[in-house]
Amino acid sequence: MNLVLTRDSQVRVMEAAVTSAEKSFGQLCSLLAAYTRKTARLRDKADQLVKQLINFANAENPELRATVRDFAEDLAKVQDYRQAEVERLETKVVNPLKLYGVQIKQTKAEIKKFKRIRNNEIKQLEKLERLRQKSPSDRQMISQAESSVQRASVDASRTTQQLEETIDAFQKQKLQDLQRIFVDFVTIEMIFHAKAVEVYSSAFQTLDSYDLERDLEDFRAKMRGVYGQCDPRPLTTTTTITSSLPWAVISQSTESTMQSRKKDAEDSEGDDSVEEDEVEDLRGRGQGQGLHK
Amino acid sequence: MNLVLTRDSQVRVMEAAVTSAEKSFGQLCSLLAAYTRKTARLRDKADQLVKQLINFANAENPELRATVRDFAEDLAKVQDYRQAEVERLETKVVNPLKLYGVQIKQTKAEIKKFKRIRNNEIKQLEKLERLRQKSPSDRQMISQAESSVQRASVDASRTTQQLEETIDAFQKQKLQDLQRIFVDFVTIEMIFHAKAVEVYSSAFQTLDSYDLERDLEDFRAKMRGVYGQCDPRPLTTTTTITSSLPWAVISQSTESTMQSRKKDAEDSEGDDSVEEDEVEDLRGRGQGQGLHK
Repeated sequence: MNLVLTRDSQVRVMEAAVTSAEKSFGQLCSLLAAYTRKTARLRDKADQLVKQLINFANAENPELRATVRDFAEDLAKVQDYRQAEVERLETKVVNPLKLYGVQIKQTKAEIKKFKRIRNNEIKQLEKLERLRQKSPSDRQMISQAESSVQRASVDASRTTQQLEETIDAFQKQKLQDLQRIFVDFVTIEMIFHAKAVEVYSSAFQTLDSYDLERDLEDFRAKMRGVYGQCDPRPLTTTTTITSSLPWAVISQSTESTMQSRKKDAEDSEGDDSVEEDEVEDLRGRGQGQGLHK
Repeated sequence: MNLVLTRDSQVRVMEAAVTSAEKSFGQLCSLLAAYTRKTARLRDKADQLVKQLINFANAENPELRATVRDFAEDLAKVQDYRQAEVERLETKVVNPLKLYGVQIKQTKAEIKKFKRIRNNEIKQLEKLERLRQKSPSDRQMISQAESSVQRASVDASRTTQQLEETIDAFQKQKLQDLQRIFVDFVTIEMIFHAKAVEVYSSAFQTLDSYDLERDLEDFRAKMRGVYGQCDPRPLTTTTTITSSLPWAVISQSTESTMQSRKKDAEDSEGDDSVEEDEVEDLRGRGQGQGLHK
């Protein structure tokens, strides 16, 4: 049995384990960091959606305004939970994986040290062998070389032992940390999704109970508003223009209407080639002007 | 009361409602489309993570391999649900909002038509007024003009009625669709998050029951493997090199070891200036070579 050769094979297995861990952890780390960043981008977009919903709500009738605001608040709550998810992923998943870079470097340094010491052992063995071939009778030199080999072997076996312990600890730590990191990932995701279900359930209730008819009445009242005290509902069955409904009035009172128009027209020299928008401006009554583009 | 002016104000309120809806729906649509795209990006990244986890699993010991594969499968399941989320958001949220572009264009066309007809009414009224001022005695002309005004008024009031109905229907549809779209958004999100909770709960069980010790034993056996039948455990208490443990053998049997090394060395001319890697190559025993970088 050749222990020097055995140590070579052993160090190869160790190096393979560490190099493989370095590669896998590096790739997992950058993918999980990217996953976390994409989650943060989704949160940003949802935050914009929340703002847009609030702007939208402010321009709507009271019932829809309250409903959309509540919905926006719930959506914002989900984003707060998503923010917590992002922070926890960074702290408990991405950062521990990053720390492996340091740990792996230390382990690689241990392996390098072992190789140096093992090379010394080989060198001493080779020296001894050369001496035995060239000067088989020089007992003193051979004895000295044997002592050197012995010292180098002691060093090598002590280092092998340390290396084995280091690699064993490294592997155990790797498995423990991997399990903990994956468990943390799953826990963080689980908590986020559970909170989201909770918030969206409440949002569903709010949206479901939205009373559309009340807003529609508000909107109709606004439409009606421009008629003042008149009944604003459109004609649905009247076919003659002599009806008592407001738009019928014009045919019965063209003259008086014209007189009131004339007054307006006098203020503006009654230019009949006036542009549509200018005509509207001449008639400006304050009401509704703000809405006009 | 001036109905022509009233119609101006009314059309302004209608135009404002439609323009505001156009703007809000457009912004909501593009934000929700962006939210959906970001969700798809998150799914893509998680898919990469799944692949990486499977690659990683394949290089690990059986226990960890099975655990990480199960975890990767669960993560893939969540992405399937996320894909369903993305598709449903597109179908039930983004697309209906896009369709508003069409509906709003139709409503705007209605308003334009109304304005044209109302402008004709104004023109006829102005023509009548001019006639009354210039030729107050031309009864026939005035009568004709009065008929034109009456026809234009009938057109205008009929169109006003149509427009009011269109706007009323548009507003009702808008509120209904908005409620439905928001309810659908919340439902889609709720289903996705609930499924994710379910899958991650199962993933948690799998990861939690991972038996680290078994893999550690596998790893130690692999380390041991390079020693063949020997006890591979490192020295922990022995302080002398005359122990019966394998690395102690070298000091007791330097000569016999040297003889076996000599045989190897003879094959390669025993060059002592040989490089470390070459030394390793000379000793190549097949075993473990594949693992070496």
